[in-house]
Amino acid sequence: MVIESNRKVNVAIIGFGSVGRALARVLALKRRDIYNRYGINISIVAIVDSKGMAIKPEGFDEYELLKLSELPRSSVNMFKPYAVDGVDLEKLYNTVTPDIHVELTPSDYSTGKPGVDNVFFAISRGAHLVLANKAPLVLKFRELIDKAKSRGLEVRFRATVLGGTPFIDTLMSMKSYEIDRIEGIINATTNFILTEMHDKLIEFSEALKIAQALGIAEANPSLDIDGIDAAAKLVIISNIVGTPIKLEDVYRESLSRITLRDIVDAIKQGFVIKYIATLNIRERSASVRIARVPRNDIFAQINGTLNGLRIKTNVAELIFIGKGGGGIETAHSVLDDIISIAQKVVGSR
Amino acid sequence: MVIESNRKVNVAIIGFGSVGRALARVLALKRRDIYNRYGINISIVAIVDSKGMAIKPEGFDEYELLKLSELPRSSVNMFKPYAVDGVDLEKLYNTVTPDIHVELTPSDYSTGKPGVDNVFFAISRGAHLVLANKAPLVLKFRELIDKAKSRGLEVRFRATVLGGTPFIDTLMSMKSYEIDRIEGIINATTNFILTEMHDKLIEFSEALKIAQALGIAEANPSLDIDGIDAAAKLVIISNIVGTPIKLEDVYRESLSRITLRDIVDAIKQGFVIKYIATLNIRERSASVRIARVPRNDIFAQINGTLNGLRIKTNVAELIFIGKGGGGIETAHSVLDDIISIAQKVVGSR
Repeated sequence: MVIESNRKVNVAIIGFGSVGRALARVLALKRRDIYNRYGINISIVAIVDSKGMAIKPEGFDEYELLKLSELPRSSVNMFKPYAVDGVDLEKLYNTVTPDIHVELTPSDYSTGKPGVDNVFFAISRGAHLVLANKAPLVLKFRELIDKAKSRGLEVRFRATVLGGTPFIDTLMSMKSYEIDRIEGIINATTNFILTEMHDKLIEFSEALKIAQALGIAEANPSLDIDGIDAAAKLVIISNIVGTPIKLEDVYRESLSRITLRDIVDAIKQGFVIKYIATLNIRERSASVRIARVPRNDIFAQINGTLNGLRIKTNVAELIFIGKGGGGIETAHSVLDDIISIAQKVVGSR
Repeated sequence: MVIESNRKVNVAIIGFGSVGRALARVLALKRRDIYNRYGINISIVAIVDSKGMAIKPEGFDEYELLKLSELPRSSVNMFKPYAVDGVDLEKLYNTVTPDIHVELTPSDYSTGKPGVDNVFFAISRGAHLVLANKAPLVLKFRELIDKAKSRGLEVRFRATVLGGTPFIDTLMSMKSYEIDRIEGIINATTNFILTEMHDKLIEFSEALKIAQALGIAEANPSLDIDGIDAAAKLVIISNIVGTPIKLEDVYRESLSRITLRDIVDAIKQGFVIKYIATLNIRERSASVRIARVPRNDIFAQINGTLNGLRIKTNVAELIFIGKGGGGIETAHSVLDDIISIAQKVVGSR
């Protein structure tokens, strides 16, 4: 296709697991369509994984994106002739000039590595940010937003909460409301486990095994079943609504405590058991708890890997239900963020 | 409060029924807060109803806004010394210079008056637009958006669909998705009537009387119970997703056909009856129908004046539930639109 060069927006993808691969595939399919609809040419100039980098200043074409997405994990450094051994963002930024830095590395809430370092480096080099890695937002929200703002850079992270939906942007757009409380089911793995326990009347350990077999739970499922992932999402939400809470201040109950007996007792009394994350803005408190929900409550209908959030404001209540994540759903959220920023980049030229 | 004058954004409110009055009250309460949070001073320079205008170039203060909201209907022309008899937008725009024109007149889908004329006049005078009146969007969507765009003006209308929620903006922000189908319960009056029929096992006419007594249904309820309001909302949605459908092309079943017998039969078989609006984007068709919904479907939990919409995309499904409208809820949506535009107006100075 013939594309005006001032419509080209350079994108670097840092982290190339399931979301990164899905993003490469979706982009291979949709680049032309995005150009036709929005007048922007998204050009992937670099892809980085844990072992190396693939860099192409003029941008990978559709076929190359598909091939990259089919390489074994951690082997973009085999993608000749664009392969570079080892990860060196300085070298990357000296070779290509990303307009948008897409941070998809895993969320590490202890060290923040490599996400925190990566995104601050990106800001120092004048790149706008799209994040699916939650750690930089959980650990350094204010600093990140302020630094970016002071350089006129955008930071978007729609993929981090209810990744398959535009929840984050919706929350941000509620400018005139006073939000009292946000609560919901925001971790897909644990909601899937609970749904299995209710539907098949099985114990937690068995439901967890099914989730692991299906790739819904990780081999080390602690982030999900100990409520850390949900707590991290609450921290991000708390920052958006201007009442920041720290990860260590979120009260957490591990879902591993739940037994089939608890489930059966709840069902008999007209309830279902859900793993509910709550941010109480007035009290500046947050929790991730095992809770009984009346069977006719909307939360009782949110099953499997669906997620849902209820926003209670001084005026009204809003409920948002959608996919919590998944490679392809999250990739679309990342892509929406990229498109939004790219439109501004092109518009300001 | 001391406010920098370059932070002042002039707003004219055209139409002063329940939403307009609620907006005046909310603004009286929140103006200071909005200034502190967003650095914009929303100044209401004119309020227009069906009989006259109240105009104050330096902007009404909080106390005046409250007093205006408590006047009898159609009597802003009694608000001395700012009263003007008769409606004359040309005179209004020659006296004050609204940055934002807020069109809250009633939706008339036959003649489009006065909304259509008002908003095109506003554009001709360089004012950004916020609409709660649906008629200009239903009858002249493309022309309106194009004219505004060509003059660099914003058009926002969050209040028109699921008025108590930011549904419209959320839909617009789903840039990378292909939307297949949007369906839901989008008229509060008819959902209230159906809920009453299910809960109290009463006939349609009786439920309608309750809705009228509570002010939920109008004396002439045809717009709601014949599905015209829901159809108008589908037309707006169809334009947003780029597959415009005309109001007369929406297939409509009147809810007045429903009997208690239908409800009881449905309940016995495990269903509830809902008034479902559907936009099928692939087929470019739209309908407002009486439908049976399985009792455990999420739509079956959307009762009373709640509304809900399901967006089905090529990737995922998203459900949005919230207040369909109401004076104060709709006023907040209008205010969110005003704030969004005002931020851009101030930012571009």
